[in-house]
Amino acid sequence: MNLLLLEPEEAANPRLRLTGRRAAHLLRVLKVGAGDRLRAGVVNGGRGEAVVVAVGSDSVEVEIALTAPPEAVPVVDLLLALPRPKVLRRLLADLAALGVGTLHLTNAWRVERSYFNSPVLTPEVIGRCLRLGLEQAGATRLPKVVVHPRLMAFLDETLPALDHRRRLVAQPGAATPIAAAADTGRSLIALGPEGGWIEREVATLVQRGFEPITLGSRILRTETAAVVAVALATPPVGGGSHRPTAAG
Amino acid sequence: MNLLLLEPEEAANPRLRLTGRRAAHLLRVLKVGAGDRLRAGVVNGGRGEAVVVAVGSDSVEVEIALTAPPEAVPVVDLLLALPRPKVLRRLLADLAALGVGTLHLTNAWRVERSYFNSPVLTPEVIGRCLRLGLEQAGATRLPKVVVHPRLMAFLDETLPALDHRRRLVAQPGAATPIAAAADTGRSLIALGPEGGWIEREVATLVQRGFEPITLGSRILRTETAAVVAVALATPPVGGGSHRPTAAG
Repeated sequence: MNLLLLEPEEAANPRLRLTGRRAAHLLRVLKVGAGDRLRAGVVNGGRGEAVVVAVGSDSVEVEIALTAPPEAVPVVDLLLALPRPKVLRRLLADLAALGVGTLHLTNAWRVERSYFNSPVLTPEVIGRCLRLGLEQAGATRLPKVVVHPRLMAFLDETLPALDHRRRLVAQPGAATPIAAAADTGRSLIALGPEGGWIEREVATLVQRGFEPITLGSRILRTETAAVVAVALATPPVGGGSHRPTAAG
Repeated sequence: MNLLLLEPEEAANPRLRLTGRRAAHLLRVLKVGAGDRLRAGVVNGGRGEAVVVAVGSDSVEVEIALTAPPEAVPVVDLLLALPRPKVLRRLLADLAALGVGTLHLTNAWRVERSYFNSPVLTPEVIGRCLRLGLEQAGATRLPKVVVHPRLMAFLDETLPALDHRRRLVAQPGAATPIAAAADTGRSLIALGPEGGWIEREVATLVQRGFEPITLGSRILRTETAAVVAVALATPPVGGGSHRPTAAG
């Protein structure tokens, strides 16, 4: 936990008593005491500091001062063929840590239909995985996650309303390497399931303006490919002045 | 499995009878039959094709034709503070898939000493994890893995003999973003443990010519940071003409 992440309703008052998971982490891993200062931020909101005012056996009282504006929305969005639930769980945290704007999860020919019934796809589990990633990264901008049970419905009904400067589809055999956008526009990157998109899906994506790009000559697992794609498509930025407070 | 990976001694004859794990995968996942063609390659050796000649209930007989030269050694090496065994196991496969030349695993102040006694650090387990990564990626160049129980011994005795065009150390607060080398030289990237290098370690690394770079303003888990670092430091290449044969 490299940032104390608060919900908007918790940040309504500057003084807050934490219990549960976050308090346990602060007490037993970070071993905070009165007077300690922590990075803190509100989901999609202000960022700043929390000062520990008092500690109980299962609770931590903090005073919050949010002085920095909300984080910018990351410029990369993903259209991801729904992976296995176990993979998705880890990937949600990784993508929240790395920074994606919106994660569109879609069906595809080679996606197992049963994955859509997984409990990982409930808003509670998605929200929890994403928040763990944000806390690890020291970030506050929560990715949006949208589930599309039909790829064609996404392409026909949702895609036209989305504002992306470029649409990319990752294909092992493509000639153009993926690279960060040269301007400040948003990118949407389509990543297929294990085994890849079928040819008809690629043809449809290309027809809708997705440019084939490659992540390199090697075939990566979904979770590795997603991390690599987001890292390579995100414009580089110099680091902030913060440091890890302790092991996540 | 996107490539049938063979050991050098197996490739001594063009005709080969496979049993065990690879045969089981070919039979039950890829469901091969006589006449099917597969990408094949030898660890650190030639690459080409295997033609299925016959299938048994637990065995597959193939004829191998290696026409392409060995893969180039990937240009990025890592100096990685030894992560938790469970993380290391996954990371070995990911790094083999993504492509690193040598992985130097080192002790550091914040590394738990007991990690060095993990069975994951045996040559057998390391070799198995790396091969799974290569098979997934369709690659044949096996990363070297070297374990250094003392960081200072590595820096004093091993490092001077290594030939790198640049040495980098990833630090969340650094001003320079990591980027692919502009020339064809090799890179060595140092990545700290969970919680980071301590200041004295960073100072020592900088003194030995490691330039501080950042992977971005977000603090990533070791396994994510390692994947991102290798992806960003590797010069982009257009893809080959191959395609996935089936889900790994």
